[in-house]
Amino acid sequence: MSSFDSRVQAVAWQDDGVRLLDQRRLPVEVSYLHLGTVDEVATAIRDMVVRGAPAIGITAAYAVVLAARAAFKRDPDHWRDIVPADLERLAAARPTAVNLAWAIHEMNAVFARCHGDPEPQLLARAQQIHEDDIRANRTMGELGCEVIADARAVLTHCNAGALATGGYGTALGVVRSARARGALERVFVSETRPWLQGARLTAWELMQDEIPVTLIADTAASHLLGTGQVQWVIVGADRIAANGDVANKIGTCQLAIAARYHGVRFMVAAPVSTIDCAMANGAGIPIEERPEREVLACLERPSAPPDCTAWNPAFDITPAALIDVIVTESGVVEAPDREKIQALLSC
Amino acid sequence: MSSFDSRVQAVAWQDDGVRLLDQRRLPVEVSYLHLGTVDEVATAIRDMVVRGAPAIGITAAYAVVLAARAAFKRDPDHWRDIVPADLERLAAARPTAVNLAWAIHEMNAVFARCHGDPEPQLLARAQQIHEDDIRANRTMGELGCEVIADARAVLTHCNAGALATGGYGTALGVVRSARARGALERVFVSETRPWLQGARLTAWELMQDEIPVTLIADTAASHLLGTGQVQWVIVGADRIAANGDVANKIGTCQLAIAARYHGVRFMVAAPVSTIDCAMANGAGIPIEERPEREVLACLERPSAPPDCTAWNPAFDITPAALIDVIVTESGVVEAPDREKIQALLSC
Repeated sequence: MSSFDSRVQAVAWQDDGVRLLDQRRLPVEVSYLHLGTVDEVATAIRDMVVRGAPAIGITAAYAVVLAARAAFKRDPDHWRDIVPADLERLAAARPTAVNLAWAIHEMNAVFARCHGDPEPQLLARAQQIHEDDIRANRTMGELGCEVIADARAVLTHCNAGALATGGYGTALGVVRSARARGALERVFVSETRPWLQGARLTAWELMQDEIPVTLIADTAASHLLGTGQVQWVIVGADRIAANGDVANKIGTCQLAIAARYHGVRFMVAAPVSTIDCAMANGAGIPIEERPEREVLACLERPSAPPDCTAWNPAFDITPAALIDVIVTESGVVEAPDREKIQALLSC
Repeated sequence: MSSFDSRVQAVAWQDDGVRLLDQRRLPVEVSYLHLGTVDEVATAIRDMVVRGAPAIGITAAYAVVLAARAAFKRDPDHWRDIVPADLERLAAARPTAVNLAWAIHEMNAVFARCHGDPEPQLLARAQQIHEDDIRANRTMGELGCEVIADARAVLTHCNAGALATGGYGTALGVVRSARARGALERVFVSETRPWLQGARLTAWELMQDEIPVTLIADTAASHLLGTGQVQWVIVGADRIAANGDVANKIGTCQLAIAARYHGVRFMVAAPVSTIDCAMANGAGIPIEERPEREVLACLERPSAPPDCTAWNPAFDITPAALIDVIVTESGVVEAPDREKIQALLSC
C-alpha cells in the first residue's frame, strides 16, 4: 500500500489477509484482527469491528479476494460459480451503507478478465479501490476546507474519519485539511449513543493527530449550536439518494434540524460511491435496526431495568432541504437537489 | 404523610429526618439515605441523590426543619440568626431549578410566627408543601390528559415523575392520569445522557406502575418523531421565565425543535412554583455546568480517551415559541407568552 496521511488505519491488506483495527475495543486498547476468510470478514463487519461506509466498502473488496482465493483453491475451473453465494452473505452484513454493495459490484466487474489464479488481479483492484478512497478523501478535504473557510469550530457526529475510510476521513478529512491550513481551533464531538463512536473513536482519532477536541453528550448539541461557538456541522454519509437526501448515523437528522433553527450551516462529506442513483429519495433507504441490548446498556453495563423494551434504529434520513453543502471528490453541491446530483455524477 | 398514589417515593420525613431514595443507584438497587443535618441534605442535592425541581424543593423544605432544629438546640433565643448561613449553603446546592429557592423562601416566611421550639410549625409547613405538590401534580395530570386526549403514544425526556416530585409526577403525572382513563398505549423515553435519568429512572418508574415503555437513545428522538408514532412530547421544567421560556434538562430544546419540524406537539407540565416572575426570559436563567467526568464516562466506566476535554451543561432553554402548552395546577396555557403567564399567576 502507499503511505497514509493520518496516523490511524482501520483496514489493511497484510500477510495475505485482511487486517482490521478492532474498533470495538477503542479507545481502551489498540488491537488488530487478522482475517483469512470471507465469512470472518462478514462477521467482523456485522459486529462492527470495522464500521463507516467507505471502510466497509474497502474491507469488502479485500474480502472478495479471500472468497476468490478459497474458491479457486477448491475448484480452479469453476471458482466464479462458487463465489456468488459468499458475496451474498457478505453483502447482507449491513444493509444501510451502499458502499458495501458498490465495492462488491466493482470487484465482480474484474472477474471476467481474470485468467488462471484470480488473486493478483483482484488484489490489485481492491488496493486501487483503497487508494482511490484515500485520494478522494484528500480531495474532499481540500474542497471542504475552502467551503468552511474561516470557521473557528465545527461539530461532528459519529466517526467519519480515518477509522471510517481508507485512511484520511470524509468529515474529518475536511477537519484535517483545515487544520493543515492553520484554520479551525476546535472540533466538538457528540458522543453518539448507543455505540459511542464520537466518544470512543472520533475523540481518540483527533487526539492522535493533536487536534483540540471537546466531547459533548448528544443531548447538548442544540444548546451548543445556540451559543454561536460553532459555525458548521460536518458529517459523513452511509448512502445519498438521487435527490440529495442523506442516510447517516442516527442523530444526524436532529443535528440538521437544530443547525437550521440556530443558523449554523450543515455539510455532508462523502465519496461519490456513497451516492445511490437507483434510490429516488431517502424514504426508500433501508434503515438497519440493531439489537435492543445496545440501548439497554452502556459499554456493556446495564443502564435500564431488566426486561425494559428498547428501539434501536442505527441510521436516519436527513432531507436534502436541510443540507447546505454536499462535498464529494467530484465537486461541491450547494443546496443539493436531483438536478445538481445528476450534474455532479456526469462530470 | 397522607397516602401516595404512585408506588415510588423520592423524599419523605421519617424518624425525625429526611429519607431520600438514592436515585444514583437505580435501577440496580432500591436503597434509602436517612439524613439528619442540613449540610447532609445540601450534599445529597448536589450529588443528585435526589433530583427533579419539585423534589429538590420539598427536600429543601425538610432541610430547613433540620437547620432550625440544630440552631434552636444550640441557642434557643437566637436560632433565627444562625439559620441563614445554613440556608445559603443549601440554596447554592443546584443553581438552575427555582423550586429550591422558592421552598426556602416559603419556609423562611414561617420563622416570624414560631414561638419556642420552631420544629413543629416548620415541619407542618414542609409537609404542607409536600402535600400541595402531590395535589398539584394530580391536578396537572387531570388537566394535561384532557389536552393530549386521544394520543396513542408520547415521548418524554429525563425524569419528571414521582421520583422528581412529591409523589405523582408532572410529565409522568399526565401519563398516569391518561393511563387511569384507559388512554395512551405506550411511553417512549429518551435515555437522557449523561446521567441517564430516562433509562435509569423513568423506565424503572413506569415499569413499577406497569405502563408500557420503549427506551430510545437520545440520538433516535427525531427519527421517532418522524415516524408518526408519537403525538406529544411531554417534559417537566426546572424554571419557567415570565415570558414562558423553559429551562429543563439538557436535550429538551432539541426535542422541541424536532417536534415542531415533524408536526408533533410539545407540552411542559410544571407547578406554578417553577415559574420565576423575576426572570424576564430564558436568557437570564443560570445554566448549571456539571463535571466533565459525567460525559467522559458511562455508568462510571470511561467512554472516551484519558485527558479528553468535555463540556457538560446540565440544562438548556426552550423558547416559549416552541412550546404548544404549559400545564400547571392553576390552569393550561396554550402558546405561552408574557401576558398569558401573568394572567395565570393572578388566577
